[in-house]
Amino acid sequence: MQYKGYLIDLDGTMYRGNHEIEGAKKFIHHLNTHAIPYLFITNNSTLTREAVVQKLASFGITTTIHHILTSAVATAKYIKGQNKQAACFIIGEVGLITAFEEAGLTITDQNCDYVIVGLDREITYDKLAKASLLIRQGAQFISTNSDAAIPTEAGLLPGNGSLTAAISTSTGVQPIFVGKPENIIMEEAMKLIGLDRDNVLMIGDNYETDILAGINANIDTLMVLTGFSTLEDLEAVTKKPTYIKKDLIEWMHVK
Amino acid sequence: MQYKGYLIDLDGTMYRGNHEIEGAKKFIHHLNTHAIPYLFITNNSTLTREAVVQKLASFGITTTIHHILTSAVATAKYIKGQNKQAACFIIGEVGLITAFEEAGLTITDQNCDYVIVGLDREITYDKLAKASLLIRQGAQFISTNSDAAIPTEAGLLPGNGSLTAAISTSTGVQPIFVGKPENIIMEEAMKLIGLDRDNVLMIGDNYETDILAGINANIDTLMVLTGFSTLEDLEAVTKKPTYIKKDLIEWMHVK
Repeated sequence: MQYKGYLIDLDGTMYRGNHEIEGAKKFIHHLNTHAIPYLFITNNSTLTREAVVQKLASFGITTTIHHILTSAVATAKYIKGQNKQAACFIIGEVGLITAFEEAGLTITDQNCDYVIVGLDREITYDKLAKASLLIRQGAQFISTNSDAAIPTEAGLLPGNGSLTAAISTSTGVQPIFVGKPENIIMEEAMKLIGLDRDNVLMIGDNYETDILAGINANIDTLMVLTGFSTLEDLEAVTKKPTYIKKDLIEWMHVK
Repeated sequence: MQYKGYLIDLDGTMYRGNHEIEGAKKFIHHLNTHAIPYLFITNNSTLTREAVVQKLASFGITTTIHHILTSAVATAKYIKGQNKQAACFIIGEVGLITAFEEAGLTITDQNCDYVIVGLDREITYDKLAKASLLIRQGAQFISTNSDAAIPTEAGLLPGNGSLTAAISTSTGVQPIFVGKPENIIMEEAMKLIGLDRDNVLMIGDNYETDILAGINANIDTLMVLTGFSTLEDLEAVTKKPTYIKKDLIEWMHVK
Protein backbone atom coordinates (compact mmCIF):
# COMPACT_ATOMS: atom_id res chain seq x y z
CA MET A 1 0.00 0.00 0.00
CA GLN A 2 2.79 2.32 -1.05
CA TYR A 3 0.73 5.06 -2.77
CA LYS A 4 -0.28 8.43 -1.33
CA GLY A 5 -3.59 8.49 -3.22
CA TYR A 6 -5.98 6.25 -5.15
CA LEU A 7 -8.27 6.63 -8.16
CA ILE A 8 -10.86 3.88 -7.93
CA ASP A 9 -13.41 2.50 -10.36
CA LEU A 10 -16.90 1.61 -9.14
CA ASP A 11 -18.74 -1.12 -11.07
CA GLY A 12 -16.74 -4.36 -10.96
CA THR A 13 -14.34 -2.92 -8.38
CA MET A 14 -16.57 -1.70 -5.50
CA TYR A 15 -19.69 -3.71 -6.40
CA ARG A 16 -20.95 -5.90 -9.21
CA GLY A 17 -24.52 -5.02 -10.17
CA ASN A 18 -26.36 -5.38 -6.88
CA HIS A 19 -23.70 -7.56 -5.26
CA GLU A 20 -20.95 -6.63 -2.81
CA ILE A 21 -17.35 -7.28 -3.78
CA GLU A 22 -15.16 -8.79 -1.08
CA GLY A 23 -12.63 -6.37 0.38
CA ALA A 24 -14.11 -3.19 -1.13
CA LYS A 25 -15.68 -1.95 2.10
CA LYS A 26 -12.56 -2.80 4.11
CA PHE A 27 -10.28 -1.02 1.64
CA ILE A 28 -12.30 2.22 1.63
CA HIS A 29 -12.62 2.06 5.42
CA HIS A 30 -8.82 1.87 5.59
CA LEU A 31 -8.46 4.94 3.33
CA ASN A 32 -11.06 6.87 5.35
CA THR A 33 -9.55 6.07 8.76
CA HIS A 34 -6.00 6.88 7.61
CA ALA A 35 -7.09 10.03 5.76
CA ILE A 36 -5.54 8.76 2.52
CA PRO A 37 -6.77 10.79 -0.48
CA TYR A 38 -8.94 8.92 -2.99
CA LEU A 39 -11.44 9.55 -5.74
CA PHE A 40 -14.00 7.24 -7.28
CA ILE A 41 -13.97 7.61 -11.07
CA THR A 42 -16.95 6.35 -13.03
CA ASN A 43 -18.01 6.64 -16.67
CA ASN A 44 -21.63 6.52 -15.49
CA SER A 45 -23.16 9.93 -16.23
CA THR A 46 -26.72 9.08 -15.23
CA LEU A 47 -26.30 9.35 -11.43
CA THR A 48 -25.64 12.47 -9.39
CA ARG A 49 -22.71 12.34 -6.96
CA GLU A 50 -25.27 12.15 -4.13
CA ALA A 51 -26.84 9.09 -5.73
CA VAL A 52 -23.41 7.44 -6.06
CA VAL A 53 -22.75 8.09 -2.34
CA GLN A 54 -26.10 6.48 -1.51
CA LYS A 55 -25.41 3.52 -3.78
CA LEU A 56 -22.04 2.93 -2.09
CA ALA A 57 -23.72 3.28 1.33
CA SER A 58 -26.08 0.44 0.35
CA PHE A 59 -22.97 -1.77 0.20
CA GLY A 60 -21.74 -0.46 3.55
CA ILE A 61 -19.13 1.80 1.91
CA THR A 62 -18.98 5.24 3.50
CA THR A 63 -17.84 8.21 1.42
CA THR A 64 -18.75 11.80 0.44
CA ILE A 65 -19.61 13.59 -2.79
CA HIS A 66 -16.10 15.11 -2.73
CA HIS A 67 -14.73 11.63 -3.36
CA ILE A 68 -16.81 11.13 -6.54
CA LEU A 69 -15.86 12.08 -10.10
CA THR A 70 -18.46 10.98 -12.63
CA SER A 71 -18.03 11.46 -16.39
CA ALA A 72 -20.90 13.96 -16.07
CA VAL A 73 -19.00 16.11 -13.58
CA ALA A 74 -15.76 15.76 -15.55
CA THR A 75 -17.56 16.86 -18.73
CA ALA A 76 -19.06 19.92 -17.04
CA LYS A 77 -15.65 20.87 -15.57
CA TYR A 78 -13.96 20.38 -18.93
CA ILE A 79 -16.44 22.62 -20.77
CA LYS A 80 -16.44 25.20 -17.97
CA GLY A 81 -12.65 25.32 -18.32
CA GLN A 82 -12.97 26.05 -22.03
CA ASN A 83 -15.85 28.53 -21.96
CA LYS A 84 -17.52 29.74 -18.76
CA GLN A 85 -20.51 31.09 -20.72
CA ALA A 86 -20.97 27.98 -22.86
CA ALA A 87 -24.50 27.34 -24.15
CA CYS A 88 -25.02 23.58 -23.99
CA PHE A 89 -27.54 21.19 -25.50
CA ILE A 90 -27.62 18.05 -23.39
CA ILE A 91 -28.83 14.55 -24.12
CA GLY A 92 -28.60 12.75 -20.80
CA GLU A 93 -30.15 11.91 -17.47
CA VAL A 94 -30.31 13.65 -14.09
CA GLY A 95 -26.61 13.11 -13.31
CA LEU A 96 -25.53 15.00 -16.41
CA ILE A 97 -28.12 17.78 -16.14
CA THR A 98 -27.27 18.31 -12.45
CA ALA A 99 -23.53 18.49 -13.15
CA PHE A 100 -24.08 21.25 -15.73
CA GLU A 101 -26.48 23.14 -13.45
CA GLU A 102 -23.98 22.95 -10.57
CA ALA A 103 -21.23 24.22 -12.89
CA GLY A 104 -23.42 27.23 -13.76
CA LEU A 105 -23.47 26.39 -17.46
CA THR A 106 -26.40 27.37 -19.67
CA ILE A 107 -28.59 24.49 -20.83
CA THR A 108 -30.53 25.34 -23.99
CA ASP A 109 -31.39 24.06 -27.45
CA GLN A 110 -30.73 27.34 -29.28
CA ASN A 111 -27.42 28.70 -30.63
CA CYS A 112 -25.40 26.09 -28.78
CA ASP A 113 -21.63 26.07 -28.40
CA TYR A 114 -21.66 22.43 -27.34
CA VAL A 115 -23.75 19.31 -27.82
CA ILE A 116 -23.15 16.91 -24.94
CA VAL A 117 -24.27 13.30 -25.16
CA GLY A 118 -24.54 10.99 -22.17
CA LEU A 119 -26.57 7.84 -21.69
CA ASP A 120 -30.25 8.76 -21.88
CA ARG A 121 -32.77 5.98 -21.44
CA GLU A 122 -35.48 8.41 -22.53
CA ILE A 123 -33.78 9.05 -25.86
CA THR A 124 -36.11 10.21 -28.66
CA TYR A 125 -35.72 10.87 -32.35
CA ASP A 126 -36.30 14.56 -31.66
CA LYS A 127 -33.30 14.65 -29.31
CA LEU A 128 -31.09 12.90 -31.89
CA ALA A 129 -32.38 15.25 -34.59
CA LYS A 130 -31.78 18.38 -32.51
CA ALA A 131 -28.24 17.24 -31.64
CA SER A 132 -27.51 16.50 -35.32
CA LEU A 133 -28.76 19.89 -36.51
CA LEU A 134 -26.78 21.78 -33.83
CA ILE A 135 -23.57 19.88 -34.64
CA ARG A 136 -24.11 20.58 -38.35
CA GLN A 137 -24.51 24.26 -37.39
CA GLY A 138 -21.09 24.17 -35.73
CA ALA A 139 -21.66 23.18 -32.10
CA GLN A 140 -18.78 21.13 -30.67
CA PHE A 141 -19.72 17.48 -30.11
CA ILE A 142 -18.75 16.06 -26.70
CA SER A 143 -19.62 12.60 -25.41
CA THR A 144 -19.32 11.59 -21.75
CA ASN A 145 -17.93 8.15 -22.65
CA SER A 146 -17.64 5.61 -25.41
CA ASP A 147 -18.91 2.50 -23.55
CA ALA A 148 -20.66 0.43 -26.24
CA ALA A 149 -22.74 -1.63 -23.82
CA ILE A 150 -23.63 -1.58 -20.15
CA PRO A 151 -24.13 -4.65 -17.96
CA THR A 152 -27.62 -4.91 -16.43
CA GLU A 153 -29.68 -7.66 -14.83
CA ALA A 154 -31.37 -8.11 -18.26
CA GLY A 155 -28.05 -8.46 -20.10
CA LEU A 156 -25.77 -6.10 -22.03
CA LEU A 157 -27.82 -3.07 -23.06
CA PRO A 158 -26.82 -0.11 -25.27
CA GLY A 159 -24.31 2.20 -23.60
CA ASN A 160 -23.55 5.79 -24.33
CA GLY A 161 -21.11 4.84 -27.07
CA SER A 162 -24.12 3.40 -28.89
CA LEU A 163 -26.21 6.61 -28.71
CA THR A 164 -23.11 8.62 -29.60
CA ALA A 165 -22.60 6.45 -32.70
CA ALA A 166 -26.11 7.35 -33.91
CA ILE A 167 -25.19 11.05 -33.87
CA SER A 168 -21.68 10.65 -35.27
CA THR A 169 -23.10 8.53 -38.13
CA SER A 170 -25.84 11.06 -38.79
CA THR A 171 -23.47 14.06 -38.84
CA GLY A 172 -20.20 12.52 -40.00
CA VAL A 173 -18.56 14.23 -36.99
CA GLN A 174 -16.59 12.31 -34.35
CA PRO A 175 -17.03 13.55 -30.76
CA ILE A 176 -14.48 14.31 -28.09
CA PHE A 177 -14.89 11.59 -25.44
CA VAL A 178 -14.37 12.58 -21.80
CA GLY A 179 -14.60 9.30 -19.84
CA LYS A 180 -12.11 6.47 -19.30
CA PRO A 181 -9.90 5.47 -21.12
CA GLU A 182 -9.59 9.05 -22.38
CA ASN A 183 -7.34 11.56 -20.69
CA ILE A 184 -9.85 14.33 -19.99
CA ILE A 185 -11.47 12.62 -16.99
CA MET A 186 -8.04 11.61 -15.67
CA GLU A 187 -6.73 15.18 -15.88
CA GLU A 188 -9.77 16.39 -13.92
CA ALA A 189 -9.11 13.62 -11.38
CA MET A 190 -5.46 14.66 -10.98
CA LYS A 191 -6.52 18.26 -10.34
CA LEU A 192 -9.02 17.13 -7.70
CA ILE A 193 -6.75 14.70 -5.85
CA GLY A 194 -3.88 17.21 -5.82
CA LEU A 195 -0.98 14.72 -5.84
CA ASP A 196 1.85 14.04 -8.27
CA ARG A 197 1.01 11.23 -10.66
CA ASP A 198 3.93 9.14 -9.33
CA ASN A 199 2.12 8.94 -6.01
CA VAL A 200 -1.26 7.83 -7.35
CA LEU A 201 -2.59 4.37 -8.24
CA MET A 202 -5.53 3.75 -10.57
CA ILE A 203 -7.56 0.71 -9.50
CA GLY A 204 -10.13 -0.99 -11.72
CA ASP A 205 -11.49 -4.24 -13.13
CA ASN A 206 -11.82 -3.26 -16.81
CA TYR A 207 -8.62 -3.29 -18.83
CA GLU A 208 -10.11 -1.35 -21.75
CA THR A 209 -11.39 1.55 -19.65
CA ASP A 210 -9.80 1.70 -16.17
CA ILE A 211 -6.37 0.29 -16.82
CA LEU A 212 -5.88 1.97 -20.20
CA ALA A 213 -7.01 5.25 -18.61
CA GLY A 214 -4.21 4.89 -16.05
CA ILE A 215 -1.67 3.86 -18.67
CA ASN A 216 -2.67 6.79 -20.94
CA ALA A 217 -2.30 9.17 -17.99
CA ASN A 218 1.10 7.74 -16.92
CA ILE A 219 -0.32 6.53 -13.62
CA ASP A 220 0.47 3.13 -12.09
CA THR A 221 -2.43 0.68 -12.33
CA LEU A 222 -3.87 -2.16 -10.30
CA MET A 223 -6.21 -4.54 -12.09
CA VAL A 224 -8.49 -6.51 -9.79
CA LEU A 225 -10.07 -9.72 -11.07
CA THR A 226 -13.46 -9.00 -9.50
CA GLY A 227 -15.28 -7.71 -12.57
CA PHE A 228 -15.06 -7.52 -16.34
CA SER A 229 -11.51 -8.37 -17.45
CA THR A 230 -9.77 -11.71 -16.91
CA LEU A 231 -6.15 -12.87 -16.87
CA GLU A 232 -6.77 -14.32 -20.34
CA ASP A 233 -7.80 -10.87 -21.62
CA LEU A 234 -4.33 -9.63 -20.68
CA GLU A 235 -2.48 -12.21 -22.77
CA ALA A 236 -3.00 -10.27 -25.99
CA VAL A 237 -2.17 -6.80 -24.66
CA THR A 238 1.31 -5.31 -24.78
CA LYS A 239 0.86 -2.68 -22.06
CA LYS A 240 0.22 -4.64 -18.86
CA PRO A 241 -1.21 -3.25 -15.62
CA THR A 242 1.48 -2.40 -13.01
CA TYR A 243 -0.15 -4.89 -10.62
CA ILE A 244 -2.75 -7.65 -10.98
CA LYS A 245 -4.52 -8.95 -7.86
CA LYS A 246 -7.41 -11.30 -7.23
CA ASP A 247 -9.14 -8.62 -5.19
CA LEU A 248 -8.50 -5.69 -2.84
CA ILE A 249 -7.90 -8.00 0.12
CA GLU A 250 -4.90 -9.42 -1.71
CA TRP A 251 -3.78 -5.85 -2.45
CA MET A 252 -4.04 -4.84 1.21
CA HIS A 253 -1.73 -7.74 2.14
CA VAL A 254 1.04 -6.30 -0.07
CA LYS A 255 3.69 -4.77 2.13
CA MET B 1 -35.06 5.80 -74.86
CA GLN B 2 -33.52 2.49 -75.90
CA TYR B 3 -34.38 0.42 -72.76
CA LYS B 4 -37.23 -2.03 -72.31
CA GLY B 5 -37.67 -1.19 -68.62
CA TYR B 6 -36.71 1.36 -65.98
CA LEU B 7 -35.85 1.33 -62.29
CA ILE B 8 -36.46 4.82 -60.96
CA ASP B 9 -35.52 6.57 -57.74
CA LEU B 10 -38.05 8.85 -56.05
CA ASP B 11 -36.61 11.68 -53.90
CA GLY B 12 -34.44 13.96 -56.03
CA THR B 13 -35.57 12.21 -59.22
CA MET B 14 -39.41 12.40 -59.18
CA TYR B 15 -39.72 15.22 -56.59
CA ARG B 16 -37.50 17.16 -54.25
CA GLY B 17 -39.08 17.48 -50.78
CA ASN B 18 -42.44 19.03 -51.56
CA HIS B 19 -41.41 20.36 -54.96
CA GLU B 20 -42.07 18.95 -58.43
CA ILE B 21 -39.13 18.09 -60.65
CA GLU B 22 -39.42 19.15 -64.27
CA GLY B 23 -39.98 16.28 -66.67
CA ALA B 24 -40.80 13.64 -64.04
CA LYS B 25 -44.55 13.62 -64.68
CA LYS B 26 -44.03 13.64 -68.45
CA PHE B 27 -41.57 10.75 -68.31
CA ILE B 28 -43.83 8.51 -66.21
CA HIS B 29 -46.81 9.43 -68.40
CA HIS B 30 -44.78 8.28 -71.41
CA LEU B 31 -43.99 4.94 -69.70
CA ASN B 32 -47.64 4.46 -68.70
CA THR B 33 -49.07 5.23 -72.13
CA HIS B 34 -46.55 3.02 -73.94
CA ALA B 35 -46.90 0.19 -71.38
CA ILE B 36 -43.16 0.24 -70.72
CA PRO B 37 -42.31 -1.71 -67.53
CA TYR B 38 -40.94 0.36 -64.65
CA LEU B 39 -40.48 0.21 -60.91
CA PHE B 40 -39.90 2.98 -58.41
CA ILE B 41 -37.15 1.96 -55.98
CA THR B 42 -36.86 3.85 -52.72
CA ASN B 43 -34.81 3.32 -49.56
CA ASN B 44 -37.64 4.96 -47.59
CA SER B 45 -39.16 2.25 -45.39
CA THR B 46 -41.57 4.50 -43.48
CA LEU B 47 -44.28 4.75 -46.16
CA THR B 48 -46.60 2.03 -47.40
CA ARG B 49 -46.77 1.51 -51.15
CA GLU B 50 -50.24 3.10 -51.06
CA ALA B 51 -48.78 6.19 -49.41
CA VAL B 52 -46.07 6.40 -52.06
CA VAL B 53 -48.73 6.21 -54.80
CA GLN B 54 -50.62 9.06 -53.09
CA LYS B 55 -47.47 11.13 -52.71
CA LEU B 56 -46.68 10.73 -56.40
CA ALA B 57 -50.29 11.63 -57.24
CA SER B 58 -49.80 14.90 -55.34
CA PHE B 59 -47.18 15.78 -57.98
CA GLY B 60 -49.50 14.73 -60.80
CA ILE B 61 -47.67 11.42 -61.32
CA THR B 62 -50.02 8.49 -61.85
CA THR B 63 -48.90 5.00 -60.87
CA THR B 64 -49.97 1.88 -58.95
CA ILE B 65 -48.65 -0.02 -55.92
CA HIS B 66 -47.33 -2.67 -58.33
CA HIS B 67 -44.84 -0.10 -59.58
CA ILE B 68 -43.40 0.57 -56.09
CA LEU B 69 -40.54 -1.29 -54.38
CA THR B 70 -39.67 0.22 -51.01
CA SER B 71 -36.78 -1.03 -48.88
CA ALA B 72 -39.50 -2.22 -46.48
CA VAL B 73 -41.12 -4.45 -49.12
CA ALA B 74 -37.71 -5.65 -50.38
CA THR B 75 -36.71 -6.56 -46.81
CA ALA B 76 -39.91 -8.51 -46.21
CA LYS B 77 -39.49 -10.36 -49.53
CA TYR B 78 -35.84 -11.13 -48.75
CA ILE B 79 -36.64 -12.60 -45.35
CA LYS B 80 -39.68 -14.47 -46.66
CA GLY B 81 -37.38 -16.01 -49.28
CA GLN B 82 -35.02 -17.20 -46.55
CA ASN B 83 -37.56 -18.41 -43.98
CA LYS B 84 -41.32 -18.40 -44.56
CA GLN B 85 -41.98 -18.89 -40.82
CA ALA B 86 -39.51 -16.24 -39.66
CA ALA B 87 -40.24 -14.60 -36.29
CA CYS B 88 -39.28 -10.94 -36.66
CA PHE B 89 -38.65 -8.10 -34.23
CA ILE B 90 -39.16 -4.83 -36.06
CA ILE B 91 -37.99 -1.31 -35.31
CA GLY B 92 -39.72 0.84 -37.89
CA GLU B 93 -42.78 2.76 -38.98
CA VAL B 94 -46.03 1.81 -40.70
CA GLY B 95 -44.40 1.09 -44.07
CA LEU B 96 -42.15 -1.57 -42.60
CA ILE B 97 -44.78 -3.12 -40.33
CA THR B 98 -47.30 -3.26 -43.21
CA ALA B 99 -44.77 -4.91 -45.56
CA PHE B 100 -44.15 -7.69 -43.02
CA GLU B 101 -47.86 -8.16 -42.33
CA GLU B 102 -48.59 -8.38 -46.06
CA ALA B 103 -45.79 -10.95 -46.45
CA GLY B 104 -47.44 -13.06 -43.72
CA LEU B 105 -44.36 -12.92 -41.47
CA THR B 106 -44.67 -13.13 -37.69
CA ILE B 107 -43.96 -9.92 -35.81
CA THR B 108 -42.95 -10.55 -32.20
CA ASP B 109 -40.34 -9.67 -29.60
CA GLN B 110 -39.79 -13.23 -28.35
CA ASN B 111 -37.45 -15.91 -29.74
CA CYS B 112 -36.80 -13.95 -32.91
CA ASP B 113 -35.01 -15.22 -35.99
CA TYR B 114 -34.48 -11.69 -37.28
CA VAL B 115 -34.15 -8.17 -35.95
CA ILE B 116 -35.12 -5.67 -38.65
CA VAL B 117 -34.26 -2.00 -38.30
CA GLY B 118 -35.83 0.73 -40.41
CA LEU B 119 -36.17 4.44 -39.73
CA ASP B 120 -38.37 4.89 -36.68
CA ARG B 121 -39.07 8.43 -35.54
CA GLU B 122 -40.61 6.99 -32.40
CA ILE B 123 -37.40 5.21 -31.44
CA THR B 124 -36.99 4.50 -27.71
CA TYR B 125 -34.21 3.12 -25.56
CA ASP B 126 -36.39 0.06 -24.90
CA LYS B 127 -36.56 -0.69 -28.63
CA LEU B 128 -32.77 -0.35 -28.98
CA ALA B 129 -32.29 -2.51 -25.88
CA LYS B 130 -34.66 -5.22 -27.09
CA ALA B 131 -32.98 -5.31 -30.51
CA SER B 132 -29.54 -5.55 -28.88
CA LEU B 133 -30.55 -8.41 -26.58
CA LEU B 134 -32.17 -10.37 -29.43
CA ILE B 135 -29.11 -9.95 -31.67
CA ARG B 136 -26.86 -11.05 -28.80
CA GLN B 137 -29.14 -14.09 -28.45
CA GLY B 138 -28.49 -14.95 -32.09
CA ALA B 139 -31.18 -13.21 -34.15
CA GLN B 140 -29.94 -12.12 -37.56
CA PHE B 141 -29.54 -8.34 -37.86
CA ILE B 142 -31.07 -6.79 -40.99
CA SER B 143 -31.27 -3.09 -41.78
CA THR B 144 -33.50 -1.64 -44.49
CA ASN B 145 -30.82 0.85 -45.58
CA SER B 146 -27.64 2.59 -44.52
CA ASP B 147 -28.63 6.23 -45.26
CA ALA B 148 -26.82 8.28 -42.61
CA ALA B 149 -29.03 11.34 -42.95
CA ILE B 150 -32.31 12.27 -44.60
CA PRO B 151 -33.12 15.64 -46.14
CA THR B 152 -36.10 17.43 -44.53
CA GLU B 153 -37.43 20.97 -44.49
CA ALA B 154 -35.61 21.39 -41.11
CA GLY B 155 -32.27 20.19 -42.49
CA LEU B 156 -30.43 16.86 -42.58
CA LEU B 157 -31.85 14.64 -39.85
CA PRO B 158 -30.71 11.18 -38.69
CA GLY B 159 -31.45 8.46 -41.23
CA ASN B 160 -31.78 4.75 -40.71
CA GLY B 161 -28.02 4.27 -40.97
CA SER B 162 -27.78 6.34 -37.82
CA LEU B 163 -30.23 4.21 -35.80
CA THR B 164 -28.59 1.09 -37.20
CA ALA B 165 -25.18 2.34 -36.00
CA ALA B 166 -26.51 2.58 -32.44
CA ILE B 167 -27.39 -1.12 -32.51
CA SER B 168 -24.26 -2.28 -34.33
CA THR B 169 -22.11 -0.36 -31.84
CA SER B 170 -24.04 -1.77 -28.91
CA THR B 171 -23.80 -5.38 -30.12
CA GLY B 172 -20.57 -5.37 -32.13
CA VAL B 173 -22.56 -6.99 -34.97
CA GLN B 174 -22.77 -5.49 -38.46
CA PRO B 175 -26.17 -5.84 -40.18
CA ILE B 176 -27.05 -6.98 -43.65
CA PHE B 177 -28.29 -3.88 -45.50
CA VAL B 178 -31.09 -4.34 -48.03
CA GLY B 179 -31.51 -0.89 -49.67
CA LYS B 180 -29.52 0.88 -52.38
CA PRO B 181 -26.57 0.69 -53.06
CA GLU B 182 -26.75 -2.94 -51.87
CA ASN B 183 -27.69 -5.74 -54.18
CA ILE B 184 -30.60 -7.24 -52.24
CA ILE B 185 -33.14 -4.58 -53.24
CA MET B 186 -31.86 -4.65 -56.82
CA GLU B 187 -32.27 -8.43 -57.06
CA GLU B 188 -35.86 -8.10 -55.79
CA ALA B 189 -36.40 -5.37 -58.39
CA MET B 190 -35.07 -7.55 -61.22
CA LYS B 191 -37.46 -10.36 -60.19
CA LEU B 192 -40.40 -7.95 -60.16
CA ILE B 193 -39.69 -6.23 -63.48
CA GLY B 194 -39.01 -9.56 -65.21
CA LEU B 195 -36.51 -8.31 -67.81
CA ASP B 196 -32.85 -9.13 -68.53
CA ARG B 197 -30.51 -6.68 -66.86
CA ASP B 198 -29.17 -5.59 -70.28
CA ASN B 199 -32.59 -4.18 -71.05
CA VAL B 200 -33.04 -2.17 -67.86
CA LEU B 201 -31.86 1.33 -66.91
CA MET B 202 -31.48 2.55 -63.31
CA ILE B 203 -32.32 6.26 -63.00
CA GLY B 204 -31.45 8.36 -59.95
CA ASP B 205 -29.96 11.58 -58.60
CA ASN B 206 -27.71 10.15 -55.85
CA TYR B 207 -24.41 8.66 -56.97
CA GLU B 208 -23.72 6.88 -53.67
CA THR B 209 -27.07 5.08 -53.54
CA ASP B 210 -28.88 4.99 -56.90
CA ILE B 211 -25.98 4.93 -59.33
CA LEU B 212 -23.78 2.60 -57.27
CA ALA B 213 -26.79 0.29 -56.86
CA GLY B 214 -27.05 0.07 -60.65
CA ILE B 215 -23.30 -0.38 -61.10
CA ASN B 216 -23.20 -3.08 -58.37
CA ALA B 217 -26.07 -4.89 -60.12
CA ASN B 218 -24.51 -4.62 -63.61
CA ILE B 219 -27.33 -2.42 -64.83
CA ASP B 220 -26.83 0.68 -66.98
CA THR B 221 -27.35 3.92 -65.07
CA LEU B 222 -28.64 7.41 -65.77
CA MET B 223 -27.71 10.11 -63.29
CA VAL B 224 -30.00 13.15 -63.37
CA LEU B 225 -28.74 16.43 -61.92
CA THR B 226 -32.06 17.28 -60.25
CA GLY B 227 -31.20 16.23 -56.69
CA PHE B 228 -28.31 15.30 -54.44
CA SER B 229 -25.22 14.61 -56.56
CA THR B 230 -23.47 17.14 -58.78
CA LEU B 231 -21.10 16.90 -61.72
CA GLU B 232 -18.28 17.85 -59.31
CA ASP B 233 -19.13 14.83 -57.13
CA LEU B 234 -18.38 12.61 -60.13
CA GLU B 235 -14.84 13.93 -60.64
CA ALA B 236 -13.41 11.78 -57.85
CA VAL B 237 -15.21 8.54 -58.74
CA THR B 238 -13.74 5.89 -61.02
CA LYS B 239 -16.98 4.13 -61.95
CA LYS B 240 -19.04 6.71 -63.83
CA PRO B 241 -22.77 6.52 -64.59
CA THR B 242 -23.56 5.23 -68.09
CA TYR B 243 -25.37 8.51 -68.84
CA ILE B 244 -25.54 11.91 -67.14
CA LYS B 245 -28.39 14.27 -68.02
CA LYS B 246 -29.61 17.59 -66.63
CA ASP B 247 -33.07 16.11 -66.16
CA LEU B 248 -35.53 13.60 -67.62
CA ILE B 249 -36.59 16.03 -70.34
CA GLU B 250 -33.04 15.93 -71.69
CA TRP B 251 -33.15 12.13 -71.43
CA MET B 252 -36.42 11.93 -73.40
CA HIS B 253 -34.81 13.88 -76.24
CA VAL B 254 -32.13 11.19 -76.64
CA LYS B 255 -32.86 9.20 -79.74
